Amino acid sequence: MVRRKSDAPGRLQEAAMALFVERGYDAVTVAEIAERAEMTKRSFFNHFADKREVMFASADALQARVLDVLAAAGDELGPLDAAVEAFATAAAAQVEGYPELARARRTIIDSSTDLQERDLLKMAAMTAAVADALTSRGTPRRDAAFAAQAATAVFTTAVEDWIRDPARGLADAIRDALGGLRGALAIGERDTGSPGARARHRPRG
Amino acid sequence: MVRRKSDAPGRLQEAAMALFVERGYDAVTVAEIAERAEMTKRSFFNHFADKREVMFASADALQARVLDVLAAAGDELGPLDAAVEAFATAAAAQVEGYPELARARRTIIDSSTDLQERDLLKMAAMTAAVADALTSRGTPRRDAAFAAQAATAVFTTAVEDWIRDPARGLADAIRDALGGLRGALAIGERDTGSPGARARHRPRG
Repeated sequence: MVRRKSDAPGRLQEAAMALFVERGYDAVTVAEIAERAEMTKRSFFNHFADKREVMFASADALQARVLDVLAAAGDELGPLDAAVEAFATAAAAQVEGYPELARARRTIIDSSTDLQERDLLKMAAMTAAVADALTSRGTPRRDAAFAAQAATAVFTTAVEDWIRDPARGLADAIRDALGGLRGALAIGERDTGSPGARARHRPRG
Repeated sequence: MVRRKSDAPGRLQEAAMALFVERGYDAVTVAEIAERAEMTKRSFFNHFADKREVMFASADALQARVLDVLAAAGDELGPLDAAVEAFATAAAAQVEGYPELARARRTIIDSSTDLQERDLLKMAAMTAAVADALTSRGTPRRDAAFAAQAATAVFTTAVEDWIRDPARGLADAIRDALGGLRGALAIGERDTGSPGARARHRPRG
């Protein structure tokens, strides 16, 4: 979400968010977004396929960064930890300083079914890309798919926590959420012999 | 996916799927779906809000059934097991006998970004509803959210497995996938003391 004045996609996103907040997502046209950014409608479509995509430039950038970090990661971490650390590193670099922007973006997305659907599609693409990256590191495909889904769940939960309480920091919120996921799933754990799980949960059968 | 001849939504879904397979999702109109089902366009809109929704009557029915099973479940299972068993029971009752229909439906959804987005929105609604149901059973909200996300991941993975290999049965595929999820996440486990995880993964630090 870092942007410079010379950054056309960033200017378009800023103009779009301002207009969406003022008048609602559905009421705003691409021509109006371009005008507010002092650009042409043609320039808008040079950068974004449709009105929705202007809200997801940062999501695409985050995905690229997560994959870069994951490709450079050593093999000392298991797949879930490696994926979660990639989210923490990428998010810390890209969005850590901009909780107000993240909150405004979340409010706009939540206001429109079209945007919620596109957001879910972007997160599904992110999950699939992370699963592919984990598979390339040698994780079996099925394990990679589950680890990627768990990592995405950790990340989206942590972003919500951080938007509510930015003081704690996003990277820390991500690591806290991973602990929360492990705790939540261990509650129902029957067969891996975790002592905590045994104490909390009587096995069936 | 069970339907009788007198079942108007089922007739409309069947007509829609046949037309989507023949001519592609984008090329088919609501008027054509209604005509194929020997109904009026007005009747279509009595049952479905838009062209996309005709593909999700079975998803809405499945969600209602999962929530019914979960509401009636005893408290001997932890939240993840309870949610996964609810999916297994509901899916066994509703779709177990219809793998070809499920495969055709999946192929149509995969053919259209609009349908993929709506599918993801439906699964997100399902996940939120399951999380609410687990919270009502006394699971802390955060744990319930993670358990519901894990259960949905298990379910969607198992449906894919079952579509590829229907002989094994969907309920069994769901229980197998839960084992797969636990194994995949245990690979990266650092702090719950699972011996299997320790043997496979050297902790960082």
